[in-house]
Amino acid sequence: MTEGEIMKKIYFTVGPSQVYPTLHKHMGKAIKEEICSLNHRSQQFKNLYKETADGLKKLLNVPENFQIFFVSSATESMERVIQSCCQDTSFHIVAGAFGKAWSNYASQVGKNAVTHIFENTPDVNLDNLTVPKAAEIICITQNETSTGCSIPIEEIINLKKKNPEKLVAIDIVSSAPYIDINFKYIDIAFFSVQKGFGLPAGLAVIIAGPKALEKTEKMIKKGIKVGSYHSFRSLSEKAKDYQTPLTPNVLNIYLLNSVVKDMLKLSANKIRKDTEKKAQMIYGYFKTSTRYFPFIKNPLFCSPTTPVLDVLGDSEQIRKKLSKKGFIIGAGYGTNRENHIRIANFPAHTIKNVSTLLKHIRYII
Amino acid sequence: MTEGEIMKKIYFTVGPSQVYPTLHKHMGKAIKEEICSLNHRSQQFKNLYKETADGLKKLLNVPENFQIFFVSSATESMERVIQSCCQDTSFHIVAGAFGKAWSNYASQVGKNAVTHIFENTPDVNLDNLTVPKAAEIICITQNETSTGCSIPIEEIINLKKKNPEKLVAIDIVSSAPYIDINFKYIDIAFFSVQKGFGLPAGLAVIIAGPKALEKTEKMIKKGIKVGSYHSFRSLSEKAKDYQTPLTPNVLNIYLLNSVVKDMLKLSANKIRKDTEKKAQMIYGYFKTSTRYFPFIKNPLFCSPTTPVLDVLGDSEQIRKKLSKKGFIIGAGYGTNRENHIRIANFPAHTIKNVSTLLKHIRYII
Repeated sequence: MTEGEIMKKIYFTVGPSQVYPTLHKHMGKAIKEEICSLNHRSQQFKNLYKETADGLKKLLNVPENFQIFFVSSATESMERVIQSCCQDTSFHIVAGAFGKAWSNYASQVGKNAVTHIFENTPDVNLDNLTVPKAAEIICITQNETSTGCSIPIEEIINLKKKNPEKLVAIDIVSSAPYIDINFKYIDIAFFSVQKGFGLPAGLAVIIAGPKALEKTEKMIKKGIKVGSYHSFRSLSEKAKDYQTPLTPNVLNIYLLNSVVKDMLKLSANKIRKDTEKKAQMIYGYFKTSTRYFPFIKNPLFCSPTTPVLDVLGDSEQIRKKLSKKGFIIGAGYGTNRENHIRIANFPAHTIKNVSTLLKHIRYII
Repeated sequence: MTEGEIMKKIYFTVGPSQVYPTLHKHMGKAIKEEICSLNHRSQQFKNLYKETADGLKKLLNVPENFQIFFVSSATESMERVIQSCCQDTSFHIVAGAFGKAWSNYASQVGKNAVTHIFENTPDVNLDNLTVPKAAEIICITQNETSTGCSIPIEEIINLKKKNPEKLVAIDIVSSAPYIDINFKYIDIAFFSVQKGFGLPAGLAVIIAGPKALEKTEKMIKKGIKVGSYHSFRSLSEKAKDYQTPLTPNVLNIYLLNSVVKDMLKLSANKIRKDTEKKAQMIYGYFKTSTRYFPFIKNPLFCSPTTPVLDVLGDSEQIRKKLSKKGFIIGAGYGTNRENHIRIANFPAHTIKNVSTLLKHIRYII
């Protein structure tokens, strides 16, 4: 690289992260098509909503009778799910900061949020877990971005099988579109678009099944407050006509639609295989490292999409050295800021990107 | 125009609307600076937040002790204001659909929302209005986008002077940055960015004064629920460090910052003068029209930024004919869809744009 040249950075941060390779092309097209001026009550917007919802359903294997809602963030999704699908008691399986946050929001909106925290051992399975009888909904951070703990979908399905009368809501913020969900056993899933989809932040998707919507209607019948403009009823009524209750982030929906199309061309299968290959490369390296190691011990619970590595206080110097090479990786979350590094493994990250990153890490360590 | 050439459209819709002339340039710069990958916990983001907040304060004459919060929509702002600043009773001055919506959201989150509706005569002043004693907050849609009814800020100030112990919150969604507010008498104001700022939808700004924040703290002390991640306490605590409770719409904050800088170069004064000149051109034409007329009769209440014209059922044909000339104007709102046209008069609309639009309207009519 000659002096004056700008080094191209690769963002391995866990979100916002590396943008999807076609993003800038789609942004250019959005500008040309005047998407920022598009009336959200127009037929053109309805077509865009329908196309995006259909594309997402195809990519993520979502059944026809589920609805796709657009809201502004995964955080908002957590609140709206609780408001619309929980009358009194929610149950939260917590393996890190984002699961804890969800439980806190439930308390803050007035629910009895029962929480099971996997303190320092997030890598246990859910077989021995007793779900409180009163719980109406089981809230699971399927991929916990703060610790890199990923709960296998089979574990969640087993839990649902044992508790068929309870709703199951999963946060797939940093595992979509990799995570392969059997929606027969999942009532609600949500994610934001600045992680696995490589888009600008400011949009989230809630996938809501018929049982979730039935619950909202039951609560309304009883006179329970289910929220206002973004209640599941309000979202659902508008979604039936491919509309939103308010002016949504139209530009981001357009970009999501474009990236989902690109992903469908590539195929969900190919994305999954590549993600697993890259995850093996990352974990493979750290498992043989004599100094550093994956934070989550049980390989079954090691997140393929957001690996977290324990680097024993060396986080800052590793990040600084990699940054000089153009590789931006994540610090640890919260109090683990200096103990951990977090490396996103999203569809925007190529096998070559990961291989070069690991080469640099090997050199640095 | 030769065949095959794409006709450049001018959007006079009331939001999303014509984008600010520099928007695409700023988007290009955002892409170059990799803003979509920017970590929202980084110093660079904090600097961006501070710059944007400082710029907005300068442009809108906001006192130093007020805070700037970023949320996702004006609709969300309505809900958050009620949750954080009203324990039991809110009072709503309603002159159209958006004022009504605000009152509905207040009921839906469990408050006693007392509503004064200016049914068919939105053009009365507020002197004779009796605010219920129990009301803790007066909610005013200062510029009602659905009807073009704009309540002069002096009327609102007088109302506050008569009710100094009550909070006053104003929706300035479609009047900012034109509206000149004396924040000595206003506790909360909010707007979304896809109207007067000519940006993509998906971001809103809440300007919150010390009395609003005191109210939130008093409610928390009493054990009242004030909301979760976007409560005024949560927003305020994060804002003090130029942070947000969640990953915000970073791209849109960047674009807002850029457009605010452009507007400051132009000066708020120049924007106001131009807006008034264009408003005079629009109303001037329709006041002399023998067929059509402004929907709001009292000129004091005619919105300078979102004029609504009664076209006696001719809305669709007028809109279609103008659309063929490249001018996109708004239909009437709700049941007035075919009776009204709505013409946005935002900073992105030049005097020449308005003059050409009126020339076409004159020709069509």
